[in-house]
Amino acid sequence: MNSELNSLYEKFNQYKDMNLSLNMARGKPGKAQLDLSNGILNPELLGNYKSEDGTEVRNYGVLDGISECKRLYSEILEVPEKNIIVFGNASLTIMYDYISQCMVFGAGDKPWASQEGIKFLCPVPGYDRHFAILEHFGIEMINIPMNSEGPDMDMIDEYIKDDKVKGIICVPMYANPNGITYSENVINRFASLKPSAKDFRVIWDNAYCVHHLSDDADKFYNIFEYADKCGTSDLFIEVASTSKISFPGAGISVMAVSDANIEAVKKRMTVQTIGYDKINQLRHAAYFKNLDGIKAHMKKHAAEIKPKFDIVLETLNKYFSDSDSYKWTDPKGGYFISFDVPEGCAKRTVELCKEAGVTLTGAGATYPYHKDPKDSNIRIAPTFPDLDELKLATEILCVCAEIAELEKNQ
Amino acid sequence: MNSELNSLYEKFNQYKDMNLSLNMARGKPGKAQLDLSNGILNPELLGNYKSEDGTEVRNYGVLDGISECKRLYSEILEVPEKNIIVFGNASLTIMYDYISQCMVFGAGDKPWASQEGIKFLCPVPGYDRHFAILEHFGIEMINIPMNSEGPDMDMIDEYIKDDKVKGIICVPMYANPNGITYSENVINRFASLKPSAKDFRVIWDNAYCVHHLSDDADKFYNIFEYADKCGTSDLFIEVASTSKISFPGAGISVMAVSDANIEAVKKRMTVQTIGYDKINQLRHAAYFKNLDGIKAHMKKHAAEIKPKFDIVLETLNKYFSDSDSYKWTDPKGGYFISFDVPEGCAKRTVELCKEAGVTLTGAGATYPYHKDPKDSNIRIAPTFPDLDELKLATEILCVCAEIAELEKNQ
Repeated sequence: MNSELNSLYEKFNQYKDMNLSLNMARGKPGKAQLDLSNGILNPELLGNYKSEDGTEVRNYGVLDGISECKRLYSEILEVPEKNIIVFGNASLTIMYDYISQCMVFGAGDKPWASQEGIKFLCPVPGYDRHFAILEHFGIEMINIPMNSEGPDMDMIDEYIKDDKVKGIICVPMYANPNGITYSENVINRFASLKPSAKDFRVIWDNAYCVHHLSDDADKFYNIFEYADKCGTSDLFIEVASTSKISFPGAGISVMAVSDANIEAVKKRMTVQTIGYDKINQLRHAAYFKNLDGIKAHMKKHAAEIKPKFDIVLETLNKYFSDSDSYKWTDPKGGYFISFDVPEGCAKRTVELCKEAGVTLTGAGATYPYHKDPKDSNIRIAPTFPDLDELKLATEILCVCAEIAELEKNQ
Repeated sequence: MNSELNSLYEKFNQYKDMNLSLNMARGKPGKAQLDLSNGILNPELLGNYKSEDGTEVRNYGVLDGISECKRLYSEILEVPEKNIIVFGNASLTIMYDYISQCMVFGAGDKPWASQEGIKFLCPVPGYDRHFAILEHFGIEMINIPMNSEGPDMDMIDEYIKDDKVKGIICVPMYANPNGITYSENVINRFASLKPSAKDFRVIWDNAYCVHHLSDDADKFYNIFEYADKCGTSDLFIEVASTSKISFPGAGISVMAVSDANIEAVKKRMTVQTIGYDKINQLRHAAYFKNLDGIKAHMKKHAAEIKPKFDIVLETLNKYFSDSDSYKWTDPKGGYFISFDVPEGCAKRTVELCKEAGVTLTGAGATYPYHKDPKDSNIRIAPTFPDLDELKLATEILCVCAEIAELEKNQ
C-alpha cells in the first residue's frame, strides 16, 4: 500500500472522528438568503387586497395570473404579457404537467402515450429532476454532451431527424450543474431546429436567468426573439420561478410560450384549476415591482453566495490546480459547481464523503437513469452551508477524491 | 296572449330598465366572509418560520405537508395523519391530477387511457367542474339520480357490474348543488360497493364538510370508518380544502386516502414537485389551530350567509309555495340552493334572467355534458351578492321562471 494513500486515509479517519454532518447536496438557499425576502410577508403590501385592475385577490378567479405579475415576468423574460401564464409555487410542476398533457393529449399530433418508443434529448450533465420526469413517463432519454457554449448542436440536429425524438429538456442559462450559459450561436441553432416530429418541444427551463454571482454576468438571450425569426416559437416551452429569488416552495412560477401554446395550455388549465394563489402573486409583484427591483434583490443574494462559490473554488484550486485529471466549472451565476474527478472515481468519492459526514448529490444524478458513463461528475451545491462548513466539506471532498483516485490506480 | 303573461312581461321590462348587473352564478364567498380571515395574513403567525418539528418553512422540502396541517385535517376528516397529504391551493387540482395519474398509470390495473370506453357514474344534479374533468379526459359519464338520502345506490350497484365503469365522483356532504348529505345507510352502501373493475375509484369531494349554516347541522360520516370494516378503503379518494374556510384560491387543500393510495400518489408527487407552499400551510395551521378553531370560524361564516340563504328561500316560498311544479332545497350547509322549475323551462328562465341583468349558472351546468334531461334544474349561489341584491335577483328569477312556464304552456 502506498504511503501517499496511507497518509490520506489518516486524514480521512481524522475527519470521520469529527462526527460531522455537512451537506452540499441540494441547491437550497441559506438562511441569510431567506431572510432577504422576509419583507414580502408584510401584509401592507396587499393594500386593499385588490390587484391593479381591481380584482379581489382573496377570492376565486383569474386563471392565468394577475397582470402585475405577468408584467414583472414579461420584463424578466422579455416576452409579451399575453404570452405569460403565472402558475403555483413550482416550475417543476409546470414542466411535469406540460409533459403529462403531451402524454394524454399530444402536442399537435397524437398523444405521446399512444406513440411507441418516444425519446427526449438531454444535455448532460443536467438536472436530476428533469430526468426523473421523463423517466416517470417512460420517455427514453438520450445524452447530449455539453461543451463550453452549450449542448452539441450538431448531434442534436442529427438526432431530431428521427420523428420519435419529441423534445429536449435543458437549462439555457447558468445550467444545472455546470453553470454554462448557451452562446448566441447555440441560441440561433436552437431557434433554427428543424425536427422531423410535428409534436416536438423544447422545455426551456430558465431557472437561473437573473441569478448572477456578480456584475460580470453572462448575457441573457430571449429564445423567442430568435425563434420568432425562424417561425419556431411554438417549439419552446419556457419556464421560470421565484424559488431562488424569494422563497423556495412559497414563490410563484411562470410559463412563457407562443400564442398557440398559450391556448393549448389554458384549455387544460381551465379544467385543472380555477386559478392559482393571487395573494402570493400580489405579494411578489408589490414587493419586487419590476425588473430593477429583481436585479437589486439578486445583488443581495449574490453578496451572500459569491463568497461560498469562491471558497469551494479556492479549495479545489489548492488541491488540484496542478492536475489535468480534475476539472471544475467557475460559473458566473446559478447554484452549482460541476466537479469532474478522474474517470471511475465519482461514486467512490461520494461514498467516502458520506462516510466522513459530507452529503453530496449522488454520483450519477446529473445523468439520465443515474448513469454517468464515465463515473466522473459530481455536483457541488455551495449555497446552503455556512462558510466554515463549506470550507471543511470541500477539503474533505478533495481528500476523498484523491483517495478514490489512488485506490483506483493501485 | 294571456293577461297573466302580459303583466309578467311588464314587470320583466321594468327590471330590464333598471340595467341591473346581479350575479348568483358562482359559489364565491362575499367580501364580509373574506374579511373574517384577514388575520391569517399576519406574519406573526409564522413565528421564526419553523414548523413544529423544526422544518424551515421558507425553504425547499416536505413533500406531503407540515405535520400541524396534517393534524388539523386529521381532526376535520377523522382520518389518521399518515393518511393525509397536504397539497396546493385547490382540491380541484388534486382531483384533476389524480384522474390524470389514473389515465397514464392506472389505478392498480392498466392505464385508463389504454382501456377503451371507460365510464364514471355521476350523481345528478352535480358539480360542473367535476363533469368538466371527466369530459376533458374522454371518460363517459352516466347520470345517477339523487334522492333525499344521496344517490340511487341500487342503480350504482347495477352499473358497477360493468368493469368499464371505473368510478363515481360525488360530494357526500351538503352536495353541490342540492345540499343533500348522504345518510348513514348510503354511506354503508358506498362502503360495501363491489365493483367488477379492479381499478375502481370513488372521488369523494368533501368540499363542504364543516360548512354548516346553523347549529342544526347534518352529521358528518367518515367514509373510511365504514370502508375499513368492508375492506374497501382503497376505493376512496377523499379531498377537501380551506377554499371556503379561509380564502378561495389562496388556501390549502388535502387528500385523505388509504396507505396503498398514499404510496401511489406520493410516487407521482415526488416527480411532480419538491413540495407545496409550507408558509401558507403554517399560516393556516397557526391561525385555525384545531377543529374547534375551524368550528368557531365556520360559525362566523354561517352568520354571514345564513340570512342570504333565508332570503332566497323566503322569496321562492312567496312565489311558489302553492305550486307543485316548482321544487327547491333547504340545505343545512354548503353553498347552493337547487331550484327545479317546470320541465323544459330552465334554459328559458336563465336566458330571461340574463336579459334582465341577473347572471345564473348556465342551465344544464349541473348535469354531465350540460344536458339536463328535463331542462328543469337551476343552481342558485346565494353567498356572493349582498342581501338587497340577492332579494331583487331572486324576485327577478321567480318572475322569469313564471314567464318561462307560461310561455311553454301557451
